[in-house]
Amino acid sequence: MSTKNKTKTPVSELRKDLVSNTWVVVADKRSKRPHSFKKKTEKKITGKELKEEKEKCPFCHLEGKENLLTYKKKSGAWSLKVIPNDFPAFVHGTSLNVHDEGPFMVMNGVGFCEIIITRSHTRQISQMTVSEITEIVDAFQVRYLAQMNQRHIKYVSIFQNYGKEAGASLKHPHLQLIATPVVDPDIYRSLHGSRKYFEANQECVHCVMLEWERESGKRVIFENDEFVVLCPFASKIAFETRIYPKRHLAYFERSSTALKIQLAEAIGFTLARIKKKLGDPAYNFFLHTAPCDGRVYDHYHWHFEILPKISVWAGFELGTGTEICSVKPEDAAEILRKK
Amino acid sequence: MSTKNKTKTPVSELRKDLVSNTWVVVADKRSKRPHSFKKKTEKKITGKELKEEKEKCPFCHLEGKENLLTYKKKSGAWSLKVIPNDFPAFVHGTSLNVHDEGPFMVMNGVGFCEIIITRSHTRQISQMTVSEITEIVDAFQVRYLAQMNQRHIKYVSIFQNYGKEAGASLKHPHLQLIATPVVDPDIYRSLHGSRKYFEANQECVHCVMLEWERESGKRVIFENDEFVVLCPFASKIAFETRIYPKRHLAYFERSSTALKIQLAEAIGFTLARIKKKLGDPAYNFFLHTAPCDGRVYDHYHWHFEILPKISVWAGFELGTGTEICSVKPEDAAEILRKK
Repeated sequence: MSTKNKTKTPVSELRKDLVSNTWVVVADKRSKRPHSFKKKTEKKITGKELKEEKEKCPFCHLEGKENLLTYKKKSGAWSLKVIPNDFPAFVHGTSLNVHDEGPFMVMNGVGFCEIIITRSHTRQISQMTVSEITEIVDAFQVRYLAQMNQRHIKYVSIFQNYGKEAGASLKHPHLQLIATPVVDPDIYRSLHGSRKYFEANQECVHCVMLEWERESGKRVIFENDEFVVLCPFASKIAFETRIYPKRHLAYFERSSTALKIQLAEAIGFTLARIKKKLGDPAYNFFLHTAPCDGRVYDHYHWHFEILPKISVWAGFELGTGTEICSVKPEDAAEILRKK
Repeated sequence: MSTKNKTKTPVSELRKDLVSNTWVVVADKRSKRPHSFKKKTEKKITGKELKEEKEKCPFCHLEGKENLLTYKKKSGAWSLKVIPNDFPAFVHGTSLNVHDEGPFMVMNGVGFCEIIITRSHTRQISQMTVSEITEIVDAFQVRYLAQMNQRHIKYVSIFQNYGKEAGASLKHPHLQLIATPVVDPDIYRSLHGSRKYFEANQECVHCVMLEWERESGKRVIFENDEFVVLCPFASKIAFETRIYPKRHLAYFERSSTALKIQLAEAIGFTLARIKKKLGDPAYNFFLHTAPCDGRVYDHYHWHFEILPKISVWAGFELGTGTEICSVKPEDAAEILRKK
């Protein structure tokens, strides 16, 4: 067998990300790979197994736990609770204690870790109604506002790790909030890249990209009055999906009630489609928004990102930090768009 | 239960990476996590199952495949082969065809993908002798030199994805080489950060760090005449391990035979310890070296990095790009150092 006559047609394309200014690899010939992207669904558990699972689930038994926020149904029963994380990576503290160790700079992990829990053990966000998801979005904002003004806090991360492959250790639906004294490197790069673009072009890089994407429609999955959901042109991994406000909004925490309802609709649609079309994959779902470090980030454009965890079992990545996107974002969008 | 009296003692520390200038989170209280870091070993397969596995293994049946390099034993039987990847992300081509698509820049995936295969289906690098590993290191260099001078090639990645969780789709020991027309973002950031440090201090950041680490010894796992193996002070993930030449060397491809033997010894020791102490985890193992894009990178210091895949099942990471290192690198080094 010779590879000689394979070497003429490119099998992939490099696309330069507008924000990070780095190249991503989008492979063209996924059909030639011996793997399918649809995950095999796990075997159903029996009623007895589910009962046992619920008995052991700490999020089904929150009696006596400190509550940071509780939402209740009309019946009086709780529907959503926010509690401190029992295994926090950061805790409140008065001193950062910044100091040197040899050539390195070190500080205390001052911050806070919270868990947002919805009541049902099995009902995932992808199955929830818009009003249930609006409650989650509302909790994001309430707890964001509570943490952003704490001493030393410079960034508040909001995210969900769904499924074992994405790092979730418990099945019960839950999301997380982590307040940190530094800005996450990914956020920093996103802020830095979008600022550089703004300085060069006097325009928001995300607004420019959104205008082009909405006109083309090729990678757009969903739109409502306020939000657009798309697979980015320079996707890092297969089925990467983003939820953007159509308007230029830098600060998530300033969202109005009307905006939160629209956001909930966009989140619900997107997660339901990913579940249906990709066989309920694990995913990381997170917010990128302006930091709360006292600086001005009016050039930024907040958004949510969803990274389904399918590239690991597609076995298709470099070892150096570059993952190869094995499904073209326009193909991914077509799959997710169709009912 | 109240969290009030937990909030005084920090549970983590932030450490600023000297090269990337970003903060990593090192958690202090891993013993409080409900997970152990030792992976459960998979059930042994029977002789019959192994026979069937070998029959299906494409790397056990390379007859008729195009060879890019073959090493033979004294008996005449092959011991190592390099073949083109049947599912390449990049193929040779004459034109990059750089062009715009809307606001984005795009180019063809011109490059090459190779697989380095050792003969035994089951004998992993962690079990090999120094001379067997030297052959692998030698193949790295031979194929690196062959690819670095190809038209359009700016970087050559050398890596091993070991185990399913690290993206390996086949059990048979194999490593990969990918030649690309762009420099990987991780490498770019490492080059950029080390150049900035050099310009500010007229010293190699890696040399400064190595001098401090070797003096302290706390995070050092292994040393021979030419190499030092350590868990970096600002580790991104638990048990992150790096293999550095002690001398300031920027270009891996210029390694002497003596150096390659010493490198093989360091690689063998490190992978064997990781296997023994962490229960044979999946890992990504890769080279960071100066690009071959025609520029001068004398400030750089090549090294290998090993990222064991244990943080996913420890369930302990942010959703924003920051992973939390759940084992202090000094504890990790102590575990890996002990016989």
